[in-house]
Amino acid sequence: VKLSEIADHLGCRLEGDGEVEIGRVSGIEDAGPGDLTFVSNPRYASALRRTRASAVILAGDALPAPPGCATLRSPTPYLSFGRAVRLLTRTDAPVPGIHRLADVEVSARVAADASVAAFVSVGRGATIGARTVIGPHVSIGPRVSIGEDCVIHSHVSIREDVVIGSRVVLQDGAVVGADGFGFARRPDGTYEKIPQPGVVVIEDDVEIGANTTVDRPAVGETRIRAGAKVDNLVQVAHGVNVGSNALLCAQVGIAGSTRIGNRVVLAGQVGVAGHIDIGDDVTATAQTGIPNSVEQGAVVSGYPAIPNRDWLRASAVFKRLPELKKAIADLEARLARLEQQLARR
Amino acid sequence: VKLSEIADHLGCRLEGDGEVEIGRVSGIEDAGPGDLTFVSNPRYASALRRTRASAVILAGDALPAPPGCATLRSPTPYLSFGRAVRLLTRTDAPVPGIHRLADVEVSARVAADASVAAFVSVGRGATIGARTVIGPHVSIGPRVSIGEDCVIHSHVSIREDVVIGSRVVLQDGAVVGADGFGFARRPDGTYEKIPQPGVVVIEDDVEIGANTTVDRPAVGETRIRAGAKVDNLVQVAHGVNVGSNALLCAQVGIAGSTRIGNRVVLAGQVGVAGHIDIGDDVTATAQTGIPNSVEQGAVVSGYPAIPNRDWLRASAVFKRLPELKKAIADLEARLARLEQQLARR
Amino acid sequence: VKLSEIADHLGCRLEGDGEVEIGRVSGIEDAGPGDLTFVSNPRYASALRRTRASAVILAGDALPAPPGCATLRSPTPYLSFGRAVRLLTRTDAPVPGIHRLADVEVSARVAADASVAAFVSVGRGATIGARTVIGPHVSIGPRVSIGEDCVIHSHVSIREDVVIGSRVVLQDGAVVGADGFGFARRPDGTYEKIPQPGVVVIEDDVEIGANTTVDRPAVGETRIRAGAKVDNLVQVAHGVNVGSNALLCAQVGIAGSTRIGNRVVLAGQVGVAGHIDIGDDVTATAQTGIPNSVEQGAVVSGYPAIPNRDWLRASAVFKRLPELKKAIADLEARLARLEQQLARR
Repeated sequence: VKLSEIADHLGCRLEGDGEVEIGRVSGIEDAGPGDLTFVSNPRYASALRRTRASAVILAGDALPAPPGCATLRSPTPYLSFGRAVRLLTRTDAPVPGIHRLADVEVSARVAADASVAAFVSVGRGATIGARTVIGPHVSIGPRVSIGEDCVIHSHVSIREDVVIGSRVVLQDGAVVGADGFGFARRPDGTYEKIPQPGVVVIEDDVEIGANTTVDRPAVGETRIRAGAKVDNLVQVAHGVNVGSNALLCAQVGIAGSTRIGNRVVLAGQVGVAGHIDIGDDVTATAQTGIPNSVEQGAVVSGYPAIPNRDWLRASAVFKRLPELKKAIADLEARLARLEQQLARR
Repeated sequence: VKLSEIADHLGCRLEGDGEVEIGRVSGIEDAGPGDLTFVSNPRYASALRRTRASAVILAGDALPAPPGCATLRSPTPYLSFGRAVRLLTRTDAPVPGIHRLADVEVSARVAADASVAAFVSVGRGATIGARTVIGPHVSIGPRVSIGEDCVIHSHVSIREDVVIGSRVVLQDGAVVGADGFGFARRPDGTYEKIPQPGVVVIEDDVEIGANTTVDRPAVGETRIRAGAKVDNLVQVAHGVNVGSNALLCAQVGIAGSTRIGNRVVLAGQVGVAGHIDIGDDVTATAQTGIPNSVEQGAVVSGYPAIPNRDWLRASAVFKRLPELKKAIADLEARLARLEQQLARR
Repeated sequence: VKLSEIADHLGCRLEGDGEVEIGRVSGIEDAGPGDLTFVSNPRYASALRRTRASAVILAGDALPAPPGCATLRSPTPYLSFGRAVRLLTRTDAPVPGIHRLADVEVSARVAADASVAAFVSVGRGATIGARTVIGPHVSIGPRVSIGEDCVIHSHVSIREDVVIGSRVVLQDGAVVGADGFGFARRPDGTYEKIPQPGVVVIEDDVEIGANTTVDRPAVGETRIRAGAKVDNLVQVAHGVNVGSNALLCAQVGIAGSTRIGNRVVLAGQVGVAGHIDIGDDVTATAQTGIPNSVEQGAVVSGYPAIPNRDWLRASAVFKRLPELKKAIADLEARLARLEQQLARR
């Protein structure tokens, strides 16, 4: 594809030779002739100077174009990068229809142009919407509803009564609707299972990562709101409500009945306690542990979570604790000497 | 169902109108007319005052019944709640027999009233007990033994020779009996796999969460004792022994050969080192890291884990470390002034 | 098997009765007559004195042989232990050929002596090498290449275009090649998916644990180099490069585009930020959080990660923070008294 056509497609300002043929999008370190690359992270400024790419997508006018490399200027370079990848990638066209080795209950309704792969199991009364693609080994329980244009990758488990919107992507091995972890202690110290017949709702445009688990509750619902993106190996417990356009990074865990606000960002391995409220636009840095509700807009870190600024300062002191301890001992010795001196006079 | 019948069934004391028809159990925030709800966490006392539920299960006499809402008094309200959910929930009756698209080796023995779903693979010499329900895509290895009244949800992997008791529940995607992480370093710095032919035993009444992994050891066994409950995405390494009625919350990780006592509670994302002993009735709060053995009954927090009381106090000081550092610097300056003053006299 | 034959096979020096028949390898606590056991961890020295094993593998000459127990002396006792386990364990011979209930696209090439189990799905143009064993319910995408002598356990997902070397072991439920977590924020605050068509390469002699996830990138590749061993429930994000003979323990998470050096050891639940470089031979202790690049050979701990020695010292002081705070307050009071005293003169 000619670079000038790509520029048109992306709505980017072209600087340099628009006639160059672009075959693929590459990372800044690996790019060679015929490649389009992109830089938005200033960490890669020096790599940009060395790049052998034919063209690069750059934010605004901050970074200079390297010599001999055409430039596409974009106010949203990461978006433009993604669209360029989409433009230049050939993808496997799904085969519409139900594979002969799938098992679909007669009462299930599957759109004619949906694609159902081998070894898919679809339960009684389930519905699968138009153009939705179901990969191999997906298990769809009774009465599950899946909207249009979804992509459900291999080995996903969708348990009974789960509701999935449109344009939802579930990566391989994700489990939606397993029983929440609810057990009541009997007087003899053993536990009795609390049944978990509540529903799980995954709204439109949500993506859920590989081997992530979203549990169903005893009562009410677990809900992931429109546009939220959930990475791999995340635990969303029973009765949790995740806000619109929230980002939950890998290995985050959210305990039961907690509300996560809209546009919240939880970095990797963050843990959130149950029955609390994380306000809109909160950010928690990696490995943060959040035991109590957090006001909207806060940026928190550490365990227990405190404002990120305080945590950064306290962490900087933490590693010097042995020095501080020694400083205190020194002060005590000096002070004792002074006290003796004064007492003697 | 009439409330008075529910009261009888649960053995609760009824206060108010026993004739009201109850259709479902709901969360305190969502409950409306015809709903039964429950409160045990005092966090929800104000929600209780506002509830539109027809009836509520309450602990003892601590909380007042809201006006116009009948009350079921229970010494164990969470247990009563669970039993009410069970009473009012219709569940899918499993279909006894082996699905035509299951693959069961001829030498396997499957109870006549067990239910084996589509795409289940059952290996040579495996046995499946009475009334056990095997969901779609479950893989059961050679010589596996599964007891009576178990529920094995979709996509569970049960590897060769694993022994599973009765009334065990395995949530979707759990893996029982994968090889432990055992590698010996060769003199050239590469690793050689230590074979892991040991067994895994899951005793009666255990529940294991979605996508949790329980590894088999090289020698001896990995064992989860009767009544223990394990949440999602937990790692139980080779040779670990989890005590009776222990609770392992989501994303807990336990390294090899460690013993977890009876009734231990490990909250979310706790990590436990290998080759140590966690005494009976120990509790570890969320994200605790336990590098050494812990005495029975202890409550521990932090990494490295210390008594919870000490950790709470130390954490409260942690965020004030920059102040402490400044206070020490101030003290040093003031002390230096005094020392000079005294030296001058 | 006679102990003397085992000694020959392992190349160990035999002390004691070589005629004793050994039936199995056991853990030091459980071993009885006819068992071979092993001790390298000095924690188990007292168990060694009590053992009822017929023979024990010991390192060098450090530990004395218990009375009545023959000894195999090995410079690498854990390696010798593993080889003894292999020698004495009967394993299930895989059945060569394609199971009648597998679904293999006609354009896929499967070696004649490979073994493909029930409910395996093999996509267009995939290749499976000699003697490779594919367990039940494995999903192999289009154009995937798998080398020789691999073992792919049940429920593994291998997505399109993934390249897997020889002698690779993938434990049950592992997901290789799911889409990386890449989303660009649109001006309206919603996210747009960045397509992730890049490749994943798993080199020779790698092992990947149960339910671990290795993501594919938008551009370039995710690569796990020869001989690296990855435990269960690990997250390897898009574009990560894991070095040769690295060890990633359970529940480790590595964010996007990070490079992990050769022979790096990340203990359980360690988290590593994106776009950084962990030098060769780095070790991070359990639960460490690494926000920045680490020089080769460093041993780091804590979050944010600092040198392990500093962290051990600082952690020892941490639990005494309330005392330090009190000591500072005491110093302030004493100093104020002195200052008053001097001012009065």
